[in-house]
Amino acid sequence: MISKLKERTKEVEEVIHELISEERVPELKKPMEHLIKAGGKRIRPALCVLACEAVGGKKKDAVHPAAAIELIHNFSLVHDDIMDNDDLRRGMPTTHKVYGIAFAINGGDGLFAKAFQGIARAKLPPEKKEKVLNLFADAIFDVIEGQAMDMAFEKKEKVTTKDYLEMITRKTGRLIENAVEIGGVCGGATKEQEQALHKYGFAIGRAFQIQDDVMGIAGDPSKTGKAAGNDIREGKKTIIVLHALEHAKDATPLKKALGNKEATKEEIIKAVKFLEDTGSIQHAKDYAMQLSKDAKEAISILPDNEAKGILMDLADFTSTRSC
Amino acid sequence: MISKLKERTKEVEEVIHELISEERVPELKKPMEHLIKAGGKRIRPALCVLACEAVGGKKKDAVHPAAAIELIHNFSLVHDDIMDNDDLRRGMPTTHKVYGIAFAINGGDGLFAKAFQGIARAKLPPEKKEKVLNLFADAIFDVIEGQAMDMAFEKKEKVTTKDYLEMITRKTGRLIENAVEIGGVCGGATKEQEQALHKYGFAIGRAFQIQDDVMGIAGDPSKTGKAAGNDIREGKKTIIVLHALEHAKDATPLKKALGNKEATKEEIIKAVKFLEDTGSIQHAKDYAMQLSKDAKEAISILPDNEAKGILMDLADFTSTRSC
Repeated sequence: MISKLKERTKEVEEVIHELISEERVPELKKPMEHLIKAGGKRIRPALCVLACEAVGGKKKDAVHPAAAIELIHNFSLVHDDIMDNDDLRRGMPTTHKVYGIAFAINGGDGLFAKAFQGIARAKLPPEKKEKVLNLFADAIFDVIEGQAMDMAFEKKEKVTTKDYLEMITRKTGRLIENAVEIGGVCGGATKEQEQALHKYGFAIGRAFQIQDDVMGIAGDPSKTGKAAGNDIREGKKTIIVLHALEHAKDATPLKKALGNKEATKEEIIKAVKFLEDTGSIQHAKDYAMQLSKDAKEAISILPDNEAKGILMDLADFTSTRSC
Repeated sequence: MISKLKERTKEVEEVIHELISEERVPELKKPMEHLIKAGGKRIRPALCVLACEAVGGKKKDAVHPAAAIELIHNFSLVHDDIMDNDDLRRGMPTTHKVYGIAFAINGGDGLFAKAFQGIARAKLPPEKKEKVLNLFADAIFDVIEGQAMDMAFEKKEKVTTKDYLEMITRKTGRLIENAVEIGGVCGGATKEQEQALHKYGFAIGRAFQIQDDVMGIAGDPSKTGKAAGNDIREGKKTIIVLHALEHAKDATPLKKALGNKEATKEEIIKAVKFLEDTGSIQHAKDYAMQLSKDAKEAISILPDNEAKGILMDLADFTSTRSC
C-alpha cells in the first residue's frame, strides 16, 4: 500500500523539493530538510491528490496544496519532538538532536512558512484557492491546539475517552480530514461530494490514530520502530488505556507500568496482558474497523474510478496497518 | 507618534482579540496572548492600514491583514526569545520564562496559524486576497531566514556590513516593507503607487532596525528598556560595530567588551566612547536619516491626504525615535 501511495506523490515530492531547494541559508535549509529527507508514508498528500482525482480533477490541480500539507505535517513533527523531548523519528535522530533546539525551532518555522508559499503558488483559480486557504489554516490551528491538549493531558489527573477523542481529532485527525477535503475542492467536487469526502476524511483520520495507539501497545517493534509497550512507559492516555481504566475493577497491573519510565520488561508484559484481558485492545481495533467501514460507505456515492478504489483500500489500510 | 499609531489600530486590536479569544484551550491561549497583551508599538499594522488609506482604500479593507501582520510579528518574537534565550521583552518576562519552552513553542505556532486565519478571513475579493497571501507568505519566510542568518552570524568569524544588511533586511525589514505593500494592495493601489509603497517600506524597514541598533548602543536605558551597551555585551554585529571594525586601526577597546558577558561597566563605557570617536554611531544615524529621506521621497507621488501625512511623519520617526 505504501509503495502505491508513493507512486501517487511523485510530483508532490518534486514541489516539496522545489520549495525547499530555493533556500540559500544552509543553517535554515538543513534543519528544514532533515525530517523531509528521512521519508515517511506521505499518506496526507496522497489522500489530497486521490480525492482530487476521485471527483474528476487532474493531479496537477492538487500537487501544491498536497505539498503544503506534507510540509505542515513535518513542521508539526519537528516542533512536537522538541516539546516532547523525543530522540528518534522515522528511525533517525530528531531534528533538534542533530541541529540543537534553536535551529530546530527555526527549521520548523521555515517548513510552516514554506507550506503557505505552497498554497500561495497553487495553480488554482482565486476562488478555489481562497477555500483551500481557509480549510488549510483551520486544520493547522487544530493540529497546534491538539498538541497543547496532548501536553496538558500529561499533567491532568482525569482524562476521559471523550477528551482523548477531541484531542486526537485535532492533533492527528484534522489534517488528514482536511487533506481529503482540500483535494476535493481542487478537483471541483460538488457540494454532495465535498460532504462525502469530509466524512471519509474524518473517519480515517480518527482510525489512523487509533491504529497508531494499538501499534504503540501491541505492535511489532521491528515494524513500528517503537519499543514494545512504549506508549505505556510514556504514560500516554490512549483510547486503550482509558477504556481499561474506565472498565476494570482493579487496574493495578496497568497502573504499575503506566507512565513509569523505569518499568521492567515484565511489568510491561503484564500491563499489555491486562489490556488484552479487559478487551481494551480489541475494543480499539473494533472501533478503528468501524471507522474504516464508515469511511468507505461515505465515499460510495463517488463515481467509480481508480482513485476511488485506492481511497477504499486506504480506508481498510488505516485500521489494519502494522507500520 | 506612538499614541497616534494606536488610534489608527483600534479595529486591528479588535480583530486580534477576536481571533485569539476563539481559543478554548487555556494551555494554548495563555502563551498566545502573553506577549500580545504586553503591548508594543503596533507599527506594522498601523503602516498597513495607513498605506491602504493613503491610496484611497477604506480602513476595513486592511484590518484583517494588518492583524495577521501583528500576529506574525509576535510569533517571531516569542520564538526568537526562546532561540536567543532572552528573559525580558516589552518589560515583561518572555513567554517561555512564564510558560516553559514547550508551551511557548506551541503558543508561537498558534500565533502563526492565527495569522493565516486572519488572512483567510479578510474581507477582500479573491484576487486581492491571493496577492496579499503571496506577499505575506514571502515576508514570513524572510523573517525566519533572517533569524537563521542572525544566529549563524554569532558563530562566524567574519561578518561584513553587506551580510549584516542582508540579514536585517529579511529579519526586520521585510515584514515592515510588506506590511506597507499589503496595505496598498488592500486599498487598490495602482502599479506606480505599489512601487512607491514598496520603496517606502524597504527604506523605513531598514531605518527602523538601524535606529534600533543605535539605541542598543547609545540609547537611554530608561526609554529603550534595554541595559546600556546591551548589544555590545551580547556581541551583536550591528552596522555600528562593523563600521568600527572595518575602519579603526586598533579596535582593542571595542574588542575587550564585544560579546563579553562579564564586561565591566567601565569597559562598556570605553567601548561606546570608542564607537563615538570612530564616527560609527554617527555613521549609522546618518544612514538611517538618509533612508527616512528616501522613504518620504518615494511616497511623494501619492495623493495628499491625512494618511500620507502620517506616513511622512512615520518615516522621520523611524530614524529619530528613542524608544
